Amino acid sequence: MNSEIKLLKPFTPSKLTLVCGLPGIAYIGKLSVDYLIQQLKAELVGEVYSVHFPPYVIIKEDGTVELLRNELNLFHGEDGQDILFLSGNAQSFSPEGQYEITERILDLAVEKGVSRVYSVAALVTDREFETPSVFCAATSPALLEELKARGAQPLNHGMIGGENGLILGLARKRSIEGACFMVETHGYQTPTGEYIIDPRAAKVALNMLTQVLNVKVDMEPLEKQAIQMDEAVAKMAEIERKVRDEMTQAGKKPSYVT
Amino acid sequence: MNSEIKLLKPFTPSKLTLVCGLPGIAYIGKLSVDYLIQQLKAELVGEVYSVHFPPYVIIKEDGTVELLRNELNLFHGEDGQDILFLSGNAQSFSPEGQYEITERILDLAVEKGVSRVYSVAALVTDREFETPSVFCAATSPALLEELKARGAQPLNHGMIGGENGLILGLARKRSIEGACFMVETHGYQTPTGEYIIDPRAAKVALNMLTQVLNVKVDMEPLEKQAIQMDEAVAKMAEIERKVRDEMTQAGKKPSYVT
Amino acid sequence: MNSEIKLLKPFTPSKLTLVCGLPGIAYIGKLSVDYLIQQLKAELVGEVYSVHFPPYVIIKEDGTVELLRNELNLFHGEDGQDILFLSGNAQSFSPEGQYEITERILDLAVEKGVSRVYSVAALVTDREFETPSVFCAATSPALLEELKARGAQPLNHGMIGGENGLILGLARKRSIEGACFMVETHGYQTPTGEYIIDPRAAKVALNMLTQVLNVKVDMEPLEKQAIQMDEAVAKMAEIERKVRDEMTQAGKKPSYVT
Amino acid sequence: MNSEIKLLKPFTPSKLTLVCGLPGIAYIGKLSVDYLIQQLKAELVGEVYSVHFPPYVIIKEDGTVELLRNELNLFHGEDGQDILFLSGNAQSFSPEGQYEITERILDLAVEKGVSRVYSVAALVTDREFETPSVFCAATSPALLEELKARGAQPLNHGMIGGENGLILGLARKRSIEGACFMVETHGYQTPTGEYIIDPRAAKVALNMLTQVLNVKVDMEPLEKQAIQMDEAVAKMAEIERKVRDEMTQAGKKPSYVT
Repeated sequence: MNSEIKLLKPFTPSKLTLVCGLPGIAYIGKLSVDYLIQQLKAELVGEVYSVHFPPYVIIKEDGTVELLRNELNLFHGEDGQDILFLSGNAQSFSPEGQYEITERILDLAVEKGVSRVYSVAALVTDREFETPSVFCAATSPALLEELKARGAQPLNHGMIGGENGLILGLARKRSIEGACFMVETHGYQTPTGEYIIDPRAAKVALNMLTQVLNVKVDMEPLEKQAIQMDEAVAKMAEIERKVRDEMTQAGKKPSYVT
Repeated sequence: MNSEIKLLKPFTPSKLTLVCGLPGIAYIGKLSVDYLIQQLKAELVGEVYSVHFPPYVIIKEDGTVELLRNELNLFHGEDGQDILFLSGNAQSFSPEGQYEITERILDLAVEKGVSRVYSVAALVTDREFETPSVFCAATSPALLEELKARGAQPLNHGMIGGENGLILGLARKRSIEGACFMVETHGYQTPTGEYIIDPRAAKVALNMLTQVLNVKVDMEPLEKQAIQMDEAVAKMAEIERKVRDEMTQAGKKPSYVT
Repeated sequence: MNSEIKLLKPFTPSKLTLVCGLPGIAYIGKLSVDYLIQQLKAELVGEVYSVHFPPYVIIKEDGTVELLRNELNLFHGEDGQDILFLSGNAQSFSPEGQYEITERILDLAVEKGVSRVYSVAALVTDREFETPSVFCAATSPALLEELKARGAQPLNHGMIGGENGLILGLARKRSIEGACFMVETHGYQTPTGEYIIDPRAAKVALNMLTQVLNVKVDMEPLEKQAIQMDEAVAKMAEIERKVRDEMTQAGKKPSYVT
Repeated sequence: MNSEIKLLKPFTPSKLTLVCGLPGIAYIGKLSVDYLIQQLKAELVGEVYSVHFPPYVIIKEDGTVELLRNELNLFHGEDGQDILFLSGNAQSFSPEGQYEITERILDLAVEKGVSRVYSVAALVTDREFETPSVFCAATSPALLEELKARGAQPLNHGMIGGENGLILGLARKRSIEGACFMVETHGYQTPTGEYIIDPRAAKVALNMLTQVLNVKVDMEPLEKQAIQMDEAVAKMAEIERKVRDEMTQAGKKPSYVT
C-alpha cells in the first residue's frame, strides 16, 4: 500500500455530502465532527491507511494497538441525504502525503456520487469576542451566498492548510462544490507548544454544520462530551507531542523510538 | 496526479518562447512577468498542479479557494512570435518536486515547439547603485553575446536556484537555448525574514524582457501597478510566511494547521 | 531495489513466529533478540536492504564493508515451532521507509505462514524500581489475557514507534496476532544524547521472550555477553551518532561525508 | 528522468575499474580523482543527472549554465586495463537519492564489465602527523591483504557515508570487488563551517591510486594544480554554502531563491 482506503462494508449512498474534521489548531474540526459521528451513530465504513502517516501505533484503552489512520463514518439522513464523515487521529507531515491521502478520499467520495464537501478549521485571532464568529470560504460564489445567508462570513484572503483545506482545492479542481467553515479561536498553546482544545468554538462549528447538513443532534451532552473528548484529545495531543519530539530530535537522539 | 498540467484550451503556437517568472528573492521575476501578462492580456491556457507544492489552498478576494499552482499564459505576438509565460504563487520545497515540475513544464513547451527559454531572477548585492544592473547567464556563448549587445552583463560564476534556474539547466540538456536575467537587488528583508518586493528591479527586468521578446508595454502604469502588486505580493508573502512558520515549527506545533 | 529481502536460502518453516528486536531506546529489543539468535544458533536466512536506510556502509572487524541492513535469522524449535528473528543495525528515518520496510518483512512472513508476531521495545519511566516491569500491548484482547497470565501488564494508552511498533499495527491490519513487550528503562542518555544500553532490561525481556517462544537459553553468559554486546552496541551507537550529526548538520556542513 | 546517465558516446572498455572521487570532507576524493582525469586526459563519456541533486544550476566561467551532476570519464590504460572515473559537483541530500544514483552508476559499470571499484574518502583525525596515513576497507579480506602490501592500513571499525561509501556496499552486494582509501585529514573548517580542501592528503591518495591503477602521472604540477583546483573547489564550496544556507533557512526565508 501507499495510501489506501479499506472499505469495511459496501455502501451506496444517495445525495452524498462529505464532511471533514481532521485534527488541527484547537481541534475544532475534529471535536465537532467526532461529536456528530457519535450523536448520529454514524457507521464506520472505511479506514484510511498511508505510509505517509507518522510511523507509530497507538495503544488503545483495551490494550490493543492500532495504526494511525483516518476513518470514514456514514450516516443515512432521514431526508434521503447521506453524509460521509472524515475524521482520524493523524495527518501526514509531508506535502506529498497530504495531497495523496486527500486525493484517495476524494476518489472514493466521487465514486460514491459526492455532490458537496464541507470541512471545519480554525481561524486564529487576537480579537476579543463573546461568541466566536464563523467565517467561510467556498469553491464558488454561489455557495458562499448560501452560507452567508446562514450566518457565515466570507473571508477574502488567507489560506487553509492540511487535508481540511486541500480537500476543497482538490474538490474545486474536479468541479465538486464545497466550503470550509473557520471558527474563531485564540489558538492558545501550552508552554510546550500544544494547542489547547476549544470546545466552545467546536459548538459554534456544530451549530453551523447541523444547519447545512440538516441534521438534529442533542447539544445537551456536549459540555459533558467535551470533557470526555478532552481526554481523548489529550491522548491524541500526547501522540502528537511524542511524534513531534521525535521529529524535532531526529538529529539529536536515535530516531528509533520503540 | 503527481505533477500535471491542466490545459484549459488547445493552442498551437508559432516560434514559441517560454518566459519564467516564479516567486523568489525580491519577487523580481514574478513582478515583471505578471506585469507582462497583465499588460499584454496574455491568455491563461494552462494550470500546473503538483503534490510537491505546499499543501495549502489560498482564499481569493471573491472568497473562493484555490490550490497553490503555477500558471501558463499565452501571448500571440504581432511578429508571429508567441510567448508562453510561466508564473504562479508557489514553488516546491523539495529538490525532487522542483525538478519534476520544471520537467513537466518543459515537456509541454517542447511539445509546443519552444525554441528559447528566458527566466528572471535576483542577484543580491551590497553594491550601491543608482539603477540596478542586469546580469545574465545562458545556455550558449552565442546567446550570451546577443544579450551582451542588449546591455546584460554575463556572469562568470555563481548559481541560480529553483525553477527559474533549473529550467535553463534542463533546457540546455535538451539542446534548447535559454538565458536567465539576474537583476541587482539588495534583498532587503522584513524583521521576520520576508523579502521585500523590489519594483525598481522589476522595471529593469521588464526593460530587458520587452527588448528580447520584442513586445511593447505601457510602462506608465507600472508605478501604480507596483503598488497594487505590492498588495498582491504582500498576500503571497503572507502565504509564504505561514507555510514557512508551519515548516519551521513542524516539530514544535501540530503540523495540522487548519 | 527500493526495499528488498535477499533470501540466502529457501526455507519452509512450520508454525512460524516472527520476533522483532530492532535498535531503539536502550537497545532492549536489539540486545535481547541478538542474544537469542546467538544462543539458539539461529541461521541467517535473509537480508533486508532498502534505499530508506541511512546512506552509509559500516566497516566490520575484519576490515570489510557492509551496507546498513536488517537481518532475518531462522530457528527450528524442537516443538515443531519455528521462529524468524528480525534484527539489524538500522531503521529508516522517514515514515515512508519505515512503513515500506516493515510491509516487505511482513509480506515474507505471511508467505511463510506466520501466525504470530512479537516485538520488544522500551518504556521510558521515571519510576524507581528494583526489577523493571514488562508491559504489553497486543492485536487482540485474547492475546493480552494470555500475556497477562505470564506476568506482562497491559498498557491502556501510549504509542509504539518505528518498525517494532508498526509491525504490530500492520499485522493487525492483516489479521495476524501479535504483541509488543515494553520493558521499563530510565532511558539514560550520554551527554551527547545517545541512549545507554540497558542489559538489565534486556534480561527481563529475554525472560518473557523465552517463555512465550518456549525456548531455553543459557542465561549464564548473559552478563559477559552484555559486556561484549556493549562493545557491539557502542559501535552501533557510533554509527548512529555519526548519522545523526550528519542529519543535524545537513545545513551547516557538507552533507557529503566520506 | 529520476536519475539517469546520459552517455555521450558508446564505449566498450576492457578490464574495467571504476574509481569514485565525489566531493566530501576536505575534498580528498574529488581533488585526487579530478587530478587523475586531467593528467590522464580521460575522456568525458557520460553525465549523471538526478532529481535528487540540489535544485540549482551553476554558472560556469564562460557564462553558461549547467545542472549539478556527476561525470564519468574514461581512460584507456596502456596495459589493456580501462578506468572509469566518477567525479562531480554534487551528491544528493536524501538517503533515497544517494542509493538511487549510486545504483544507476553501478548498473552501467556492471553492464560495461567492471571488475573492481575504488573510492577515496577522508578519515578525520586529531592525530598529529608528518604525512597522512592511508587506511582502507574493502569488500573482501583478500583484497585487503593486497592493499596492505601496498601500504594501506585496514580499519576494523567505522563507517563511510555518501556515494563513496555506498558504492562499495552495493558493489559487494553484487559480488564485485572494491575498496575505499581513507586518507587522514584534520578536517579543518572555516568559521562558517566549510571544510578546507586538503591537497596534501589528496597527494597521498594519488600515490595510492596510481599504484593500484597502474598509471603514471606527472606529480610535478600537483602543487600548482592544487592552487588552481583550490579555486575550482572554492567555487564548489560556494555552491555548497549557498545550498546549505538555503536548506537551513528553508523555514526562515523564501525557499524560492532565484
